[in-house]
Amino acid sequence: MKPDGSKMEKIVSLCKRRGIVFPSSEIYGGLNSCYDYGPLGAELKRKVKNFWWQSMTQVHSNIVGLDSSILMHPKIWEASGHISNFTDPLVDCKKCKSRFRQDHLQSDTCPNCGAKDFTEARNFNLMFKTFMGPVENQGNEIFLRPETAQGIYVNYQNVLQSYRQKVPFGIAQIGKAFRNEITPGNFIFRTREFEQMEMQYFIHPSQDDESITRWKEIRFAWYEKLGISKENLRLHKHEGNELAHYAKEAYDIEYQFPFGWSELEGIHNRTDFDLQRHQKYSGKNLQYFDEQSKEKYIPYIIETSAGCDRSILCILSEAYTEEEDRVLMKFAPFIAPIQVAIMPLVKKDGLPDIADDLSKTLRKRHSIFRDDSGSIGRRYRRQDEVGTPFCITIDYESKEDHCVTLRERDSMEQIRIRIDDLENHLQEKLEFPLD
Amino acid sequence: MKPDGSKMEKIVSLCKRRGIVFPSSEIYGGLNSCYDYGPLGAELKRKVKNFWWQSMTQVHSNIVGLDSSILMHPKIWEASGHISNFTDPLVDCKKCKSRFRQDHLQSDTCPNCGAKDFTEARNFNLMFKTFMGPVENQGNEIFLRPETAQGIYVNYQNVLQSYRQKVPFGIAQIGKAFRNEITPGNFIFRTREFEQMEMQYFIHPSQDDESITRWKEIRFAWYEKLGISKENLRLHKHEGNELAHYAKEAYDIEYQFPFGWSELEGIHNRTDFDLQRHQKYSGKNLQYFDEQSKEKYIPYIIETSAGCDRSILCILSEAYTEEEDRVLMKFAPFIAPIQVAIMPLVKKDGLPDIADDLSKTLRKRHSIFRDDSGSIGRRYRRQDEVGTPFCITIDYESKEDHCVTLRERDSMEQIRIRIDDLENHLQEKLEFPLD
Repeated sequence: MKPDGSKMEKIVSLCKRRGIVFPSSEIYGGLNSCYDYGPLGAELKRKVKNFWWQSMTQVHSNIVGLDSSILMHPKIWEASGHISNFTDPLVDCKKCKSRFRQDHLQSDTCPNCGAKDFTEARNFNLMFKTFMGPVENQGNEIFLRPETAQGIYVNYQNVLQSYRQKVPFGIAQIGKAFRNEITPGNFIFRTREFEQMEMQYFIHPSQDDESITRWKEIRFAWYEKLGISKENLRLHKHEGNELAHYAKEAYDIEYQFPFGWSELEGIHNRTDFDLQRHQKYSGKNLQYFDEQSKEKYIPYIIETSAGCDRSILCILSEAYTEEEDRVLMKFAPFIAPIQVAIMPLVKKDGLPDIADDLSKTLRKRHSIFRDDSGSIGRRYRRQDEVGTPFCITIDYESKEDHCVTLRERDSMEQIRIRIDDLENHLQEKLEFPLD
Repeated sequence: MKPDGSKMEKIVSLCKRRGIVFPSSEIYGGLNSCYDYGPLGAELKRKVKNFWWQSMTQVHSNIVGLDSSILMHPKIWEASGHISNFTDPLVDCKKCKSRFRQDHLQSDTCPNCGAKDFTEARNFNLMFKTFMGPVENQGNEIFLRPETAQGIYVNYQNVLQSYRQKVPFGIAQIGKAFRNEITPGNFIFRTREFEQMEMQYFIHPSQDDESITRWKEIRFAWYEKLGISKENLRLHKHEGNELAHYAKEAYDIEYQFPFGWSELEGIHNRTDFDLQRHQKYSGKNLQYFDEQSKEKYIPYIIETSAGCDRSILCILSEAYTEEEDRVLMKFAPFIAPIQVAIMPLVKKDGLPDIADDLSKTLRKRHSIFRDDSGSIGRRYRRQDEVGTPFCITIDYESKEDHCVTLRERDSMEQIRIRIDDLENHLQEKLEFPLD
C-alpha cells in the first residue's frame, strides 16, 4: 500500500470536528506538535490505558504496577547514558543563523538562505532541561524524563522488598515522557510530549530467549484484541547496527499507518545493562539473591515499551472506514468512547422518560450519549462517525412491550430486546477481553 | 486534635515498607519532595482517579472529559496572570549566598550564617521553565503547566462545537501539574510535581450562587463515599483578602490531616475572569450564543479543583487504624489496592489448584493477591496492614463442599460461602458507588 495522505487528512479532520484530538493551544495559534485529547479522545485513551493496565498487571500474579515521578535525580540520566548519548548533531548556518539537523541536510547549502557556511556540528541533547529550586545553576539542573523505564529500574529493589516478589517478575507503568525532537510529525505519532505504557520483566539471564519470545507473542496478540487486523501488523527484528547500545535482541511491533509501516511498540532484551549501570553510579548493590539456588546475580530485563499515543493513532487508522453512504469508526466496542447512544424517537409522549430511566441505569457501567434530535437515520450516522457500537431506539411500542430496538454499528442489524435484558446483554459485549 | 507527628511517621513508614509510596530516586539519595507510587499506591491512585472520572463524567450527561498537554503556548500564562503574579518574594544573604523566602524569615539575620545583609526582595516565578526546539532563547521559552484548568479554558469552544454541548455544561480533566515550590513538605501533601482532578462548569452568570452551592454539596459527598468520616471534613469559606484575584466566592474542602486541617479541594466561582482574559489575549471571540434566548455572553465558571495526591494522603490518614493486636488500613473496599487475597491453607493436597482456578476467575474483575505461605493468622495480618477487605481461605473441606471461608477485614467476621456464589457476592461489594 502506498502512503495515503488523504486518509491521514480525513482522520485529522474528523478528530478535530468530533472532539477526539485538538491541536494544543489552538486559540493562540497552536503549539508545534502538541495535542489535546478532546472529550471522545480522552475517553478512548483512558479505556486503552485501563485495558493495557489490566492486561499487564491485574491478570498476571507476578506483575505489579508503579507510578514514578517525571522529575527524577539527574544522576539517573548519567547512568542511563542519556546525558552523553541522547543527542542529535546540529549545525548553524553562519549567515542566516538557522539551525538544522546535520544528518537531515540534503546538500552543503543552507535550505533557508543558500549560503554554504555552516558551523561545526554540535551535539544537541533531546532532554528538556529545567531547574528545581530557586537558583538557576547547574547544580539544580534537572530533566523531564525522556522515557519511563528508568523510573522502574531505580525502584526494582523497593518493589522486590515491599511486595515479596521473586524473579521472574514484572513492573508495569503508564506515564508521560518528553523529548525535544527536532522534527516531530505525523499528527500524534511523534510528539514532544507523549505517553508510554511500559512493562519491564526481570528474569534469570538464562531465560532471556524464552522470555522475549513469550512477550513478543503476548504483546502482538494484545493489538489483535484491540481489533487491529493481522495484515496491518508485523514484527520487525533489529539487525546489526539497528540494535541500541543496551540491547542484545530487539523487535518492533509495527503497524501499517496511512504514512507507511512504523513502530508501535519495542520489545527488547536489555540484558543487565541498566541495572549494572545503576549499581555502578549509585554505589548500591543491585544484585538479586535467589533463596533456593543461593545464586546472586543481576537480573536480565525484557522490556515491552508501547507508545500510548501511537496506539491511539493505530486504532483510529484501523477503525476509519468509508462506506457508500456513511463514514464509520470500527472501534472494538470495549474501547469505544461512546458505547451506547440512547435515542427516543420523538421528544414527547413519555419516550424521553423511558430514555431517562435507561440512561441512568446504563451510565453506572458504560459511556452513554443521549441524542433526542434529528431523524433517526441522521442520529445513527452521527454515532457511526465516532464509532458508537450500539444505538438504542425508544419508540411508541416501547411503552407497551417494554422493549427497545438495539442497532449494531458495523452490520447495522437491529434487534428488539427487553429493557430488562439490556444491562446483561451490553455488559457481556463491553467487558475487557482479559484472559 | 493536636498535630500527631508520630501518626504521620507511621504512615510514611508503612507506605515505604509495603510499597505504597517510595521517595523518588532513592538509590541516588532521593530528589527533594518527589515521590513514586509503588505497586499498592499506584493501584490505589488509579482506582481513586477512575472513581473521580466516572463520578464526574460518566454519570453526568452534560460533563465531558479532556486530556490536554502539559506543555502549552506561553501566551496562556500571560493571559492567566501566572507570568506576572505566580511568584514568591526571595532574598539572598549577601555573605553566604543562601536564598530565602522573605515572608518566611523570622528575623533580620540569615538563618544560615547569621549575617544581617540581604539583597532586595526579588519576585521568583514558581513555574518550571524550559525551552522547546533546539535554541535556548526567550522566544522558545515554555513552562510546565502550574495548573490543569487553563487547558480546559482554551479548549472550551472546541468542546462546545464538537460535542454539541449547551450551557450549563462541564469539562473534567485529570493530569500532572508542576510548581517550583520553595518549601514543599508534609510527604505527598505539597510536592513540586503533583496531580490534579479538576472540573470546570460553564454556566449562565445568573446561575452562579445556585451552582456553587450544588457543587459544594456534590464534592463534599464524594469524600464521604470514599469512606472519609464527616467529622474529619469541613468547608472553609474564603473571606476578604483570602479570595484569589479571579474568584468571587470560594470554599475549601478541608481534611483533618495528622498535621492539622488543610485543603483537599477548592470550589471557586471564577466568574468570567479566565475566558475574558483569553478572549483579550487571543483575540478570539469566546462568547457563547444561546439559541433559545438569543443572548450572547461569556459564561461564568464554577471550578472544583481537587488534589489527587492530597486525596490519597487523606485516604491513607483516614484508613490508618491501630487495634490491640493489629494495624489495619480501613480503605473503602472499592478503592483498596488489593481487593481479595486468596490463601490455600496448605501448599498441597490440591488446595493450590482450587486457589489457581479461583484466582484466574476473580482476576478478570478484581485486584487479587495470592498468598501461600505462613500461618493463616499471619497472612491475615499482612493483608490487614495494606487494607485488603476480603480474604478467602481454602481448606480441606473446600474439596468436598465447594465452599470457602470469606473473612471481612474490619469486623474479622468469617462466613462460609459457595465458590460459585463468590463472583456475584464480591462484585456487589466492590463496585464503584455511582449514583
